[in-house]
Amino acid sequence: MSGNIVWHSHPVNSRDRAAQKSQAPLVIWFTGLSASGKSTIAGALEQILTQQGYHTYLLDGDNVRHGLCGDLGFGDADRSENIRRVGEVAKLMTDAGLITLAAFISPFEQDRKIVRDILPEGQFVEVFVDATLAVCRERDPKQLYAKADRGEIKCFTGIDSPYEAPRNPEVRIDAGRLSVAEAVNQLLAYLHASGALKAGYQPLTIAS
Amino acid sequence: MSGNIVWHSHPVNSRDRAAQKSQAPLVIWFTGLSASGKSTIAGALEQILTQQGYHTYLLDGDNVRHGLCGDLGFGDADRSENIRRVGEVAKLMTDAGLITLAAFISPFEQDRKIVRDILPEGQFVEVFVDATLAVCRERDPKQLYAKADRGEIKCFTGIDSPYEAPRNPEVRIDAGRLSVAEAVNQLLAYLHASGALKAGYQPLTIAS
Repeated sequence: MSGNIVWHSHPVNSRDRAAQKSQAPLVIWFTGLSASGKSTIAGALEQILTQQGYHTYLLDGDNVRHGLCGDLGFGDADRSENIRRVGEVAKLMTDAGLITLAAFISPFEQDRKIVRDILPEGQFVEVFVDATLAVCRERDPKQLYAKADRGEIKCFTGIDSPYEAPRNPEVRIDAGRLSVAEAVNQLLAYLHASGALKAGYQPLTIAS
Repeated sequence: MSGNIVWHSHPVNSRDRAAQKSQAPLVIWFTGLSASGKSTIAGALEQILTQQGYHTYLLDGDNVRHGLCGDLGFGDADRSENIRRVGEVAKLMTDAGLITLAAFISPFEQDRKIVRDILPEGQFVEVFVDATLAVCRERDPKQLYAKADRGEIKCFTGIDSPYEAPRNPEVRIDAGRLSVAEAVNQLLAYLHASGALKAGYQPLTIAS
């Protein structure tokens, strides 16, 4: 399709933008069932990173499904196209020098692999927010499982659409057992140990 | 780094991200014929803004066409969808607190209006990079006009696809007459006068 395209080398590049922010760009990709805790954990992690001076952005269904992917539904092909576009946006965000968090059910392994593969080596951290279907059903904060059970929502992941669990995620969070603060601490520990964040940090304590 | 880290359970929002960067988010949208100078001027402006401490990103037609919009062609409907997606990404970039430059032919007034309308009031600066078809044809750095004349490219703006010039752009650059540095200075003057940038700046001087 895209013929006659010439890649421009612009004066300000990815390296410049990241250096200005004193950080290494990264995509932290949260995958898991609906109500597993992806957005909550990602939001809490973003808050801590921002407090520590990192420049971040959080991509999730709320800011994408209404706009960029507003033309897409929830069938398999549209789910894949949704994740492809979000992956490309995450790539642009890292090109902008940002640490980008993305919280999407992203049920298909192949789609997550596509996102991993378009990013530079080491810039994709897959976080499997692992809660059982039973736990997610019981939480059901938006009553989506209840609606799916009544047949009011079709193609609902875990009910009538499959979830392919990551086999080798960088981080697996035991989301049925850990609190949000504990999950964030697990992530901070991983990100520091892997060299993605600067050395020296305080674990999170809960204000309540 | 910071001492006691406390999770306050409220999400990081657009205002927080912009405040961290000490700037007001903005989309600076460059429209004009192929070879009018959009990307060159946008790249030069980005360099100056970055040198002055602003956090920026440059969305470029050629770069986006390889990824996010790699499935789209150059017919009218695909051109519109291309601009719609880029507009949504620009909106996400401003949500991330960035000053976002976008350089796209974006030939249709309706498509540019859609981008303007999805952004908060005052966050869209339309820059018409105005060079005549004759000037662009003579420059033809990628030999695209030559190919279009030979019928090797279809739907080429200005040849067999229309360009609808902005009627009320925030800035009109006389790109057949001004140098890149002069164009950048015109833009800096506008951005400072409009309050989009902090007061106090040095106009650009040409290195060579």
